[in-house]
Amino acid sequence: MYRTHSNGELRAEHINETVTLSGWVQKTRNKGFMIWADLRDRYGITQLIFDEERTSKEIMEIASKLGREFVIQITGTVIERESKNPNIPTGDIEVLVTKVTILNESLTPPFTIENETDGGEDLRMKYRYLDIRRKPVRDNLIFRHKVTMAVRNFLSEKQFVEIETPYLIKSTPEGARDFVVPSRMNEGQFYALPQSPQTFKQLLMVGGMDKYFQIVKCFRDEDLRADRQPEFTQIDCEMAFIEQEDILNTFEDLTRHLLKEINGVEVAEFPRMTYDDAMQKYGNDKPDIRFGMEFGELNEVAQHKDFNVFNSAELVVGIAVPNGNSYTRKEIDKLTDWVKRPQVGALGMVYVRCNDDGTYKSSVDKFYDQEDLAKWAAATGAEKGDLICVLSGEKNKVRAQLSALRMELAERLELRDPKVFAPLWVIDFPLLEWDEETNRFHAMHHPFTSPKPGQMELLKTNPGDVKANAYDLVLNGNEIGGGSIRIHDKATQAKMFDYLGFTPEEAKAQFGFLMDAFQYGAPPHGGIAFGLDRLVAILGGQETIRDFIAFPKNNSGRDVMIDAPAAIDEDQLKELNLKLDLNL
Amino acid sequence: MYRTHSNGELRAEHINETVTLSGWVQKTRNKGFMIWADLRDRYGITQLIFDEERTSKEIMEIASKLGREFVIQITGTVIERESKNPNIPTGDIEVLVTKVTILNESLTPPFTIENETDGGEDLRMKYRYLDIRRKPVRDNLIFRHKVTMAVRNFLSEKQFVEIETPYLIKSTPEGARDFVVPSRMNEGQFYALPQSPQTFKQLLMVGGMDKYFQIVKCFRDEDLRADRQPEFTQIDCEMAFIEQEDILNTFEDLTRHLLKEINGVEVAEFPRMTYDDAMQKYGNDKPDIRFGMEFGELNEVAQHKDFNVFNSAELVVGIAVPNGNSYTRKEIDKLTDWVKRPQVGALGMVYVRCNDDGTYKSSVDKFYDQEDLAKWAAATGAEKGDLICVLSGEKNKVRAQLSALRMELAERLELRDPKVFAPLWVIDFPLLEWDEETNRFHAMHHPFTSPKPGQMELLKTNPGDVKANAYDLVLNGNEIGGGSIRIHDKATQAKMFDYLGFTPEEAKAQFGFLMDAFQYGAPPHGGIAFGLDRLVAILGGQETIRDFIAFPKNNSGRDVMIDAPAAIDEDQLKELNLKLDLNL
Repeated sequence: MYRTHSNGELRAEHINETVTLSGWVQKTRNKGFMIWADLRDRYGITQLIFDEERTSKEIMEIASKLGREFVIQITGTVIERESKNPNIPTGDIEVLVTKVTILNESLTPPFTIENETDGGEDLRMKYRYLDIRRKPVRDNLIFRHKVTMAVRNFLSEKQFVEIETPYLIKSTPEGARDFVVPSRMNEGQFYALPQSPQTFKQLLMVGGMDKYFQIVKCFRDEDLRADRQPEFTQIDCEMAFIEQEDILNTFEDLTRHLLKEINGVEVAEFPRMTYDDAMQKYGNDKPDIRFGMEFGELNEVAQHKDFNVFNSAELVVGIAVPNGNSYTRKEIDKLTDWVKRPQVGALGMVYVRCNDDGTYKSSVDKFYDQEDLAKWAAATGAEKGDLICVLSGEKNKVRAQLSALRMELAERLELRDPKVFAPLWVIDFPLLEWDEETNRFHAMHHPFTSPKPGQMELLKTNPGDVKANAYDLVLNGNEIGGGSIRIHDKATQAKMFDYLGFTPEEAKAQFGFLMDAFQYGAPPHGGIAFGLDRLVAILGGQETIRDFIAFPKNNSGRDVMIDAPAAIDEDQLKELNLKLDLNL
Repeated sequence: MYRTHSNGELRAEHINETVTLSGWVQKTRNKGFMIWADLRDRYGITQLIFDEERTSKEIMEIASKLGREFVIQITGTVIERESKNPNIPTGDIEVLVTKVTILNESLTPPFTIENETDGGEDLRMKYRYLDIRRKPVRDNLIFRHKVTMAVRNFLSEKQFVEIETPYLIKSTPEGARDFVVPSRMNEGQFYALPQSPQTFKQLLMVGGMDKYFQIVKCFRDEDLRADRQPEFTQIDCEMAFIEQEDILNTFEDLTRHLLKEINGVEVAEFPRMTYDDAMQKYGNDKPDIRFGMEFGELNEVAQHKDFNVFNSAELVVGIAVPNGNSYTRKEIDKLTDWVKRPQVGALGMVYVRCNDDGTYKSSVDKFYDQEDLAKWAAATGAEKGDLICVLSGEKNKVRAQLSALRMELAERLELRDPKVFAPLWVIDFPLLEWDEETNRFHAMHHPFTSPKPGQMELLKTNPGDVKANAYDLVLNGNEIGGGSIRIHDKATQAKMFDYLGFTPEEAKAQFGFLMDAFQYGAPPHGGIAFGLDRLVAILGGQETIRDFIAFPKNNSGRDVMIDAPAAIDEDQLKELNLKLDLNL
C-alpha cells in the first residue's frame, strides 16, 4: 500500500500515529542536521522532517538528495509542528520520517510548480501534465467535474435521460465547416463529426424519449478565434410536449441550481428581454447587465440643429459614463482614438461633460445649447459628474460600436465583478439574418427553428422581420446557452429548406431522414444547448475556457504536447483511397 | 401547457379530476357510439374513452379519425374503468375526453409499435426513431442511463474526477486501425480519433490527478464482427500510487455496487484465476463460470495405448456433459459434425458414455478398457449418466475447440442463466502474445503494460513466459473490463518499444511526449477500462450491445437511418488538400 493518508489529511489529532505518505517533493530546506521537505499530492501538502538526531544516517543521505518533483514514499510519525502554519490545513503537524523510498526521480521541471508559475503559455501547454500539477489548474478541472455532476444529477432527477448519439455522422453544407472522417469500408465516402447532435435529439423526441440530455463533445472546423476550440463540450437538451415557457423554466431552474450548489449564490427570477430591446438598449444580443450604462437614443433631441454628422446619421446614440467628467481632455481623446480603431470602427465620438453645477460642456457646443444637452443627459440617464459619449451612423454598426465602448469602459471601471452573477433570457430572436457575403438570408439559429405562430407568411414579404421562438441564456455578457422551439411537420420544414436555398433534392439528400420522421407522428418539441466550457469558466469566475480544459488546442488547432495533427503513413492513405493534393 | 399528467401516472385516487394528456395513439377500438383509444408516452399508457352520450359530436368525429401513432392532446375527466386492466398501472381508470386536438398526424408506421414487433432488423434500423418508441428499446436506453449515473456517482464519491480528454489526437501504428481526420489548418496532416484515452489518462496521473475516470466514446476502424461497433463507449479509469490489489478492490466494489443497485443482486467476493489456469480449465481467457464442465487433461491416462491420434497429440482433453448419456448416437454424431465445422476446426471427437450402472461405453473401446475410461471420468469429473467429449491436437487449438464446444453445450443445456451473475478476475496475463501474421511478439494488452517485477530480463530469453500485472474482469463469459499496472519510467518504456520493434526515432515520434513525461516524476499507476455497451447489455440480461445503443451502425459501419457515410463536396476535399484515389 502506497499510503495510509493523503497529504491534505493529517491534523493535530493524528499526532503520534505512524503514517505512510506518497507524493511529489514540492521543495526542501536543508540545514545539514535537519532537512524539511514539503510533500504534495492532489489533496494538499504535508511537511516532512528529517532530523539527524532522530533519523538514520542512510535516510538523511537520501533526504539530502531529494530534488523538486521527485516522487517519494515515506513512513514516519506525526508530530506537533514547532512553528505552525495557519495557511494550510495540515499546518499544525509534520511527519518525522523513519523510512523513505524514491519512487521516481525528476529532471528540473521547465517551470515552477507553484500557484503563480514562471512558465509562459506555450511552455505550460507543451508540458501540460506538469501544469496540471499546479493547484489552480487542478482545481479548475475538479471544479468542472463538480459542475457536470451537478448538471447530470439535476436533470436526471427531473426525468431527463442521457442518451449517447453517434459521433460518426453525415456532413451537411449548412452552418459551420465539418470535420470529416474518411471511411475505409465505404470507398470514397466520409463521415462527419457532429457540430451538435441536433437532428439526433429531434429524432429522439420523435422516438418518444420526451426529455433528453447529453454532455457531449462537438466539433467545428473553423478558423479559431482567441477563445475557441475545434472540439468543445455541450450540455445538449431537448424536450417534447412543451412550449417555450416550459423550456425557459426548466433551464432557469437548472442554472439557478448550479449557482446555488456550485457558487452558493441565490438568484431571483431571471429577467427576460426581447432581442430587439437588447439591441436597442445594449447594442448586443448578449448584454452584460451587471451594470447599467444603457443606451439613450438621441435622434429626436440631436437631429434638429446644423450638425450634419448627426443629421445624416441613421442613429445617434449615447451612454453615460459614471463619474466620467473626471477624465482629462487627454483621456477623452484617447477614448476617441479607441473607438476609431479599426476593430471598433467609429468615425468619431462626441462627448458631453456633466458638470457638478448642473451645466454641460460638450465637444459640439457650437451646435447644441444647454437645453439640448440636458435632454441628452435625460435620455442617457447621465447625472452630475458623468460623461456622455455619443456615436452616430448606420444603426447596426453604431450599436455594435457603442456596445464595444460600453464593455471597454465597464472593464476600465471594474464594473464586471466575477463574483456577481446576472443571468438574462434574451427571447424573440429573428428567424433569419442577412449574410453580406452570400447576399441572402440564413437561419440565425439553425434551419430547424420554428417561426412564431402565424409568421410563416411574413417570410415572403418581410423575411427579416420574422421572429422565432428562439432564446439565449446570457450570463454576465456571455451567451451560455441557446435554443428554440423546432419545426415538427414536414411541410413547414420543407418550406424552410426551400426558403434557405436548398433544392428539394438537396433537402432530401441531407435531411430526408428528419422530414420522413416528421411524417410518423412527431410531437411538438424544442430544446437548448449550453456551452459547457464557457459555463464552467464563468461559474469559476474566469474568462478563459482553456483554463478549464485538460488538454486544449492552440489557435492553429494543434495539440503542442502530443504534436498533433501529424502526417500519416502512405499505407493509411491508400487504405482510405485518398491522395494528398498539397499546395506546397 | 401540453399535459398535466403523464400517461403512466393516473390512478383511482385521481377519479373525477380534470386532466390534460398528450401522447401517441397506440390503438383505437370503435363501436360507433363509443370509441376507446390507448394513449401512449414514455411513462405508460392511459385508456381514453369517447362516448356518444357524454362527448360532443365534433369530438366523436375527430376520435373516429384517429390513426395509429397520431399525436394528440386531450382534456377530460378521470373516471373509474368498468373492466379494469390489472396488467398496467393505470388499469383502474380511463379518461372521458371532453376536448381533443390532433397535434400531428402519422402515416401508417412501417412496423408495429408493440413490445413484439413485426419489423425486421433492417427496417427497425432505418426507422430507428420509431423503434425507440417501443417499450423494450426505450427501457434499454433508460437502463443504460441508470447504469452510467450509478457509475458516475459511485466513482465521484470515491474522489475520482471525470476529466474530458481530447478526441482529435494523433494516429499511432500500434494496435487497431485508427479513424483519421484531415486537418484543414495544418496542410497534409491528420488527427486521429482515440481508440482509448490511454496516454492521456497516464499523463493525468503524471499530472497528479490521482483518480481519474471518464465515460467516453472510442473509435476503431476494424472490419466489424457480429457485435462490434466502430464507435463504442468505455468507462475509462486510472489511479496513481496504487498496486494491482487496489485496482481490483476498487473496481470489484464498483461492479458489486452496480449488481446491487441495478440488478438487486448481492455477489460475494469475486474469485480470481490466473490466465494460465483459465486456459487450462476452460480453454478461454474469459470463462463463463456460471456452470462447471471444467476441462480434464487426459495425456497421462490416454497416451499409453495404441491409439495414435492421442499419442501424437500435444494435448488430449475432455469435458463431462451433464446427463449427456441420454444423447442418441445420431445426436452425438451431430455434435461431432459440429466440432468439425470450419469455425471450430476439430478433426474429430472421441466420446465416452457413462452408464448408470457404472460401466463405460466409448468410441475408442478398441484401445481403452474400463479402467482407462474410469480414469478419464475421474479427470473430467464425469458422473453416471454423463457423456465425456474428448478432443486432441495442438494445445492452443484444441483448447479453443473444446471451449467452443463447452459454450455450445451450455447454450443447449440452458446453463447460461442471464439472471445469474458470475464475475471473475482473470489475472497474470502474459505480457506478449505471438502474432502468426507478422511472425513476432506483440503487446497483449498494450505497450504501456508493465511486466511483473523482476521479469524484464526474461524478455530476452523466454519472452512468451513474461507475465504482466494485467487483469480482466469477466462477467458471465464476457470480458467487461481489462487493465494493467503501467510502466512509469522512461528506460523501461524505451526498452519495451525497442522490444516491440519500434526504432528509437519511431518511439520518439509517436510517444516521445509520454516518455518525456516519465522523466518529470511519474508516479506508479495503473488502471482499467470497461466496455460500457457490453456491461450494460449483460446487466440488462441480454447479449446484443446494439439493443442498448440509440443509433447503432450496421456491419458495414453504416448508419442506415441518416445514410452515412456519404460522398462530400469537391470543395470540401479541396479545402482539405485531398483527392480521391478510388479503385472503382
